[in-house]
Amino acid sequence: MISVSEAQEILSKFSNKGPIERVSFENCLNRLLAENIYADRDAPPFDRVAMDGIAIQSDQLQIRQQFIIEDIQAAGQEQKSLNKPENCLEVMTGAVLPVHTDCVIPYEKLTIKNGVARLNSTDHKAFQNTHKKGIDAKKGDQLLASGTWIHPGVKGVLATTGHTEIKVIQVPKIMICSTGDELVPITHNPLPHQIRRSNVYMLQAALKDLNIEAHTTHLPDDKDQLNASIGKLLEEYDLLMFSGAVSKGKYDFLPTVFKELGIQIHIHGVKQKPGKPFLFGTIGSKSVFGFPGNPSSTLVCFHLYFKWWYNHYLGKAPNNNYAYLNNEVTFKKPLTNHLLIKSSVEDGKILANPVANSGSGDLVHLALADGFLSLPAEKDTFKKGEIFPITFFHQTGL
Amino acid sequence: MISVSEAQEILSKFSNKGPIERVSFENCLNRLLAENIYADRDAPPFDRVAMDGIAIQSDQLQIRQQFIIEDIQAAGQEQKSLNKPENCLEVMTGAVLPVHTDCVIPYEKLTIKNGVARLNSTDHKAFQNTHKKGIDAKKGDQLLASGTWIHPGVKGVLATTGHTEIKVIQVPKIMICSTGDELVPITHNPLPHQIRRSNVYMLQAALKDLNIEAHTTHLPDDKDQLNASIGKLLEEYDLLMFSGAVSKGKYDFLPTVFKELGIQIHIHGVKQKPGKPFLFGTIGSKSVFGFPGNPSSTLVCFHLYFKWWYNHYLGKAPNNNYAYLNNEVTFKKPLTNHLLIKSSVEDGKILANPVANSGSGDLVHLALADGFLSLPAEKDTFKKGEIFPITFFHQTGL
Repeated sequence: MISVSEAQEILSKFSNKGPIERVSFENCLNRLLAENIYADRDAPPFDRVAMDGIAIQSDQLQIRQQFIIEDIQAAGQEQKSLNKPENCLEVMTGAVLPVHTDCVIPYEKLTIKNGVARLNSTDHKAFQNTHKKGIDAKKGDQLLASGTWIHPGVKGVLATTGHTEIKVIQVPKIMICSTGDELVPITHNPLPHQIRRSNVYMLQAALKDLNIEAHTTHLPDDKDQLNASIGKLLEEYDLLMFSGAVSKGKYDFLPTVFKELGIQIHIHGVKQKPGKPFLFGTIGSKSVFGFPGNPSSTLVCFHLYFKWWYNHYLGKAPNNNYAYLNNEVTFKKPLTNHLLIKSSVEDGKILANPVANSGSGDLVHLALADGFLSLPAEKDTFKKGEIFPITFFHQTGL
Repeated sequence: MISVSEAQEILSKFSNKGPIERVSFENCLNRLLAENIYADRDAPPFDRVAMDGIAIQSDQLQIRQQFIIEDIQAAGQEQKSLNKPENCLEVMTGAVLPVHTDCVIPYEKLTIKNGVARLNSTDHKAFQNTHKKGIDAKKGDQLLASGTWIHPGVKGVLATTGHTEIKVIQVPKIMICSTGDELVPITHNPLPHQIRRSNVYMLQAALKDLNIEAHTTHLPDDKDQLNASIGKLLEEYDLLMFSGAVSKGKYDFLPTVFKELGIQIHIHGVKQKPGKPFLFGTIGSKSVFGFPGNPSSTLVCFHLYFKWWYNHYLGKAPNNNYAYLNNEVTFKKPLTNHLLIKSSVEDGKILANPVANSGSGDLVHLALADGFLSLPAEKDTFKKGEIFPITFFHQTGL
């Protein structure tokens, strides 16, 4: 068996960068940008009025405090021009700064009466309350680098630069397969020895949180049927995820079936708890993840290994966050212990509070956790206040 | 003008808890659970085999180390029974523990030959490698409380308890309106004095990150048209968001139009930068958010005020996180300064690194930030290493 970090190293090696596709602006949120984005014009594209008020020539400030209003320059109007330097134009936020003006005085610092604006104070200077053409970026400047995650602010930049189509990394086509003859659909009333399917829905939800729409199916514990079904699924999908049937049971046919189908198994067994029987294989450009069937094992391995693989596929740096263990725990060497935790933030520090549970089969308490700490294999006592790598299951309050 | 916390207090008062609706299991992810969920059976529902191996009667451990294999108990099979106490059954993870057995010895600690299992070690005890019926929860126990956010683990619990329909808080119907005659669609080539719409797409994306699908529209800077359009939108939507036209400009008609339409304005102006002209009003059960038109102002106010309101609508506690300022900054009193930052985690601490920018109109640098620190109004120097409230714009690497 190999260690957690050895497993992750292997995954890095077998994750090829994903292909690029074009999506419409509407569909680009939470995708990974696969092109550099350049400014199509200066930002802002003109000397922009940044407050509502009047625009004047600043050198007039030494001579006068009253300005006759010549006209109004509204946002969306072509640039106007101040005719006489001793006058002013009323200007609105977002408007072009009129020709022959260089200073905006906001309404808050004015009294306007009978078409004349009088300054209430004298502390004004050139270019105040203006947003200079090109100060944020010059035409041709790179605004966004390929590899940027498209979040709301990035979508704003894509909009302002007129990108109606955007190159992004393609989302892999994923099928999630449950195995285990004890499983029945959630619509069923299980017999005493049966339980309802749940891991596939957890995985599907975890993938949806990564903006991946995956399908689910159930395969029976039958070697020939598994062989036929998986062979077909490998043609249709880029990546298969399995929950269960990768351990040492009589009906854990997956490792054998994978070999028969020509899948190269790169990982089978990791020195960790939960998730010891974790399996990873590839065939051509396709990947296969075999998660052990207990709910905690499945969810922990998904986050430790699939997300690691997916970050490489996207070309993103994997997360590397640490948190403070908030209670002493002990755990037998020599396995890496993935400790279920509920996080909180106190005074800027991420605290990890252990969630009591009855082991990797305990779905009830898994649902109360928002992530796990990976406690290293070399130690058996882990003290309150020590920091360890943290992985989050889902978007937290952070 | 009021302070940020006064504004939030007003919002709390005018946010009614959202109505409840039923959604299908497929559509419940990232919604707020509006019912308690109870166990429909014990969890696990039977004494469950937790490892692949053999099941024996533990009192036999003192007598023998060899066990004839009577049969196999697979997962998904009805419970079998051990006929003779000196024998064993092969058992698979997920199977019911057979009658007359109480101890599972995994394959790793066995040698099986000619139908006889021989123990490789003697350190075994009753109930090892079993997952006791009802240890996680008893039938009728509350598994999930109303008010729980439905993340992947929670979906797992809803699946295992057979919830095909779930009561959740209804998502408000939201329209996002841009105003400002300088704005053109993103498909257009703007004239020198025009810019493309971007704020509405940022807001729409930020809402989508909260699992709210909102619509967008553009309204011209014309008082009568605004009056007619907004009147109609108020009939159709629960909540209107505006970007722009709430300040002191000649064409900032929104506050007047709102009053004419009978909207009660509860907030107009907050002692903060950016976002000073922020407006909030209600009419009956409907709400109106007026965000100032600069990109930073819009996004900051969305997160400070709409999300605050929405947490109350959902009945969730607002986030209350702090982070370490990672560079000294100074800022003129007496406004709360929402400082754009890029966060990182170092040794379990959340660090907030200021993002240089040219002010609230600077969309380019806004896109590089992942949130903001709210620096209090009473001070003007903020030192590296001090902690301040942090708000995130989007899901971060955390």
